[in-house]
Amino acid sequence: MTIFQQRQQALQREMIERGWSGFLVTNNVDIYYYCGSMQTGYLFIPAEGDALYLVRRSLVRAEEEASAAVEALGSLKTLGERLRARCAGGCGSAASPLRIATELDVLPVQLYLRLQAALPGAVWEDGSLLVREQRMIKSPDEVVAIREAARVVDAALEAVIPHIREGMAEFELMALIEHQLRLRGHQGLMRMRAYNSELITGMVAAGAAAAVPTYFDGPAGGTGLHPSSPQSSGRALIGRGEPILVDIGCTIDGYLIDQTRTLVIGDLDPELQRAYDVAEQVLRATEARLQPGVIAEHLYLLALDQVQEAGLSAHFMGYGADQVKFLGHGIGLEIDELPVLAKGFKYPLAPGMVIAIEPKFTFPGRGVVGIEDTYLITENGYEKLTISRDGILRV
Amino acid sequence: MTIFQQRQQALQREMIERGWSGFLVTNNVDIYYYCGSMQTGYLFIPAEGDALYLVRRSLVRAEEEASAAVEALGSLKTLGERLRARCAGGCGSAASPLRIATELDVLPVQLYLRLQAALPGAVWEDGSLLVREQRMIKSPDEVVAIREAARVVDAALEAVIPHIREGMAEFELMALIEHQLRLRGHQGLMRMRAYNSELITGMVAAGAAAAVPTYFDGPAGGTGLHPSSPQSSGRALIGRGEPILVDIGCTIDGYLIDQTRTLVIGDLDPELQRAYDVAEQVLRATEARLQPGVIAEHLYLLALDQVQEAGLSAHFMGYGADQVKFLGHGIGLEIDELPVLAKGFKYPLAPGMVIAIEPKFTFPGRGVVGIEDTYLITENGYEKLTISRDGILRV
Repeated sequence: MTIFQQRQQALQREMIERGWSGFLVTNNVDIYYYCGSMQTGYLFIPAEGDALYLVRRSLVRAEEEASAAVEALGSLKTLGERLRARCAGGCGSAASPLRIATELDVLPVQLYLRLQAALPGAVWEDGSLLVREQRMIKSPDEVVAIREAARVVDAALEAVIPHIREGMAEFELMALIEHQLRLRGHQGLMRMRAYNSELITGMVAAGAAAAVPTYFDGPAGGTGLHPSSPQSSGRALIGRGEPILVDIGCTIDGYLIDQTRTLVIGDLDPELQRAYDVAEQVLRATEARLQPGVIAEHLYLLALDQVQEAGLSAHFMGYGADQVKFLGHGIGLEIDELPVLAKGFKYPLAPGMVIAIEPKFTFPGRGVVGIEDTYLITENGYEKLTISRDGILRV
Repeated sequence: MTIFQQRQQALQREMIERGWSGFLVTNNVDIYYYCGSMQTGYLFIPAEGDALYLVRRSLVRAEEEASAAVEALGSLKTLGERLRARCAGGCGSAASPLRIATELDVLPVQLYLRLQAALPGAVWEDGSLLVREQRMIKSPDEVVAIREAARVVDAALEAVIPHIREGMAEFELMALIEHQLRLRGHQGLMRMRAYNSELITGMVAAGAAAAVPTYFDGPAGGTGLHPSSPQSSGRALIGRGEPILVDIGCTIDGYLIDQTRTLVIGDLDPELQRAYDVAEQVLRATEARLQPGVIAEHLYLLALDQVQEAGLSAHFMGYGADQVKFLGHGIGLEIDELPVLAKGFKYPLAPGMVIAIEPKFTFPGRGVVGIEDTYLITENGYEKLTISRDGILRV
């Protein structure tokens, strides 16, 4: 049995408990997660029995890749009949309507209406959270990919450091980083799940420009090149003595890593250096608590206390109205996975979770300093997946 | 009045005709189109009166950038009240419920349900097509950006050609191209609107690998680096005498260009050379018909006739079951805009449309050849926006 079939079975157990007939997986990333292929179509996982991958294109590639029976999608008119046929005895008879779950957090309304019309009488359930919670616990093969992504990010960072110089534009540094990542196998996409969310390799910005707030749901900002992509690197020139925030990731075999280091040409202002040191202290204190059973939000609340003691609350994770209210986030096929280290997230840490933790401090007009590493929660504690050296990296 | 306010007014005229109270623009690209800013939030354009941009973050940046009144988004509970207040007299009184349009082609169901709950009694309309049809006709400023993107793509292509060599991996060529694009101001994202659609700079693949079909809704394929991003460049090594398909774009000031050239190290097989020549002939014949009033689908049907006469129908725009059924597509802020040159698209060409036209032929096991240029429809005909030299480019 493949890891993909194991995931289908785990989903089936949850569906049986909920009385659902099946899950119509529509999102490309979820389809990949459950069957190992990302061709266009729908993956139907009945509560009992074998999965069916209805593919528009490419059928040939789906047949090669997928841990599921593959059929041509054909007309949506035949969908109801085919899903019913897939459901074992009890899960969709005339007496009991089909209860179909799907990912309402990402599925567009138009497509949902078409699916509803194709399955008259079906009851629809929101399966988003179930999928996101299952994906929260990584299997060993997923960790292997994330570990490799961590190696690639470190190698790319070390490769570009010797080329950073005063007067280089932020976007030139970003272009260098991306080139090094791509040469090492980065797939070129960094996937996010939330509506309207986009990520361009990460947040690479220096000095005042890094402290410009953005729409991006993260602590660092950047001007971007234009109001039509208002995040990360812009045209600002990197100056001596200002913090260069290199918050980057990459994707290997579908899986992301996320890492931040603060660089500087020359010496950092003592106040920013002190803030950086507090960021490292927050990270170390968080690490000391990374073990199964600890509640996700507690890590955020503890960090808030530490930051307050250091007198840096106004600068933590953004500044003023543009602060974000978290310390870290789950990461895997997407960068905005569960658990979030934030208020309201009551998940106890559990083995297999992979979490990026990113204490940062923003100083308007001066820059952003901080550090971010990505961790695997293990039976007894954690394994740090990112491998880059710590501390302010002097160029 | 800014171009963004002019766009709001054009939308208002359409809303008044339809009896809608206003448009709640939710999609980041559409928000940018109508107000010049892309911060997180909702842009409400009432049928009469001034637009209101409700922003989560960054408020500061929205205030600097947007051609609209800006307010903090706050709680969704206040949304109904605030939208009603924005509507002039008749468009949402107790007697007549608010009729709110939004983009149901991209809005996720979960968010739609939250918005419905926030505006009890409101009637929702699907405004997707209206927005897409308005965006189909470009204003002069949009054409300026697309023209600049065309210049950047050409410069990047010419910069990499001297570095292409036998035995180079596809992904190494792609990394070089992306680096050159980014150094010239490419924003690093290529936006698509359709659900699950993704684009990694374009389709750069050589020989047999280029003919491997993909899930991507386009004529060229590519293995990609992994089943989790199964398109475009993979690890195949570029060989002598095989077609190297360089279908690339970039984004400048939010706007995309799309261009394909076929390259070869040495000489191309005569059969593939002939197919390439037919692709150029199809493009020339299409150009000869590019003028206001011509129906979009006719250009596709005429191409089908030409291809059939040349005996290449089975190879046109993909092979066998993986053929796509179009000749070209609108392009602007996204790569999958209207009009599509395909059956069922009855739009008459009109000044301001920008269309990428991409006749290509796929030969399984051997490669893909073809050409793609992007055109602006003018009052009297067309302007070719892409500027790269034609013909098979010998390396």
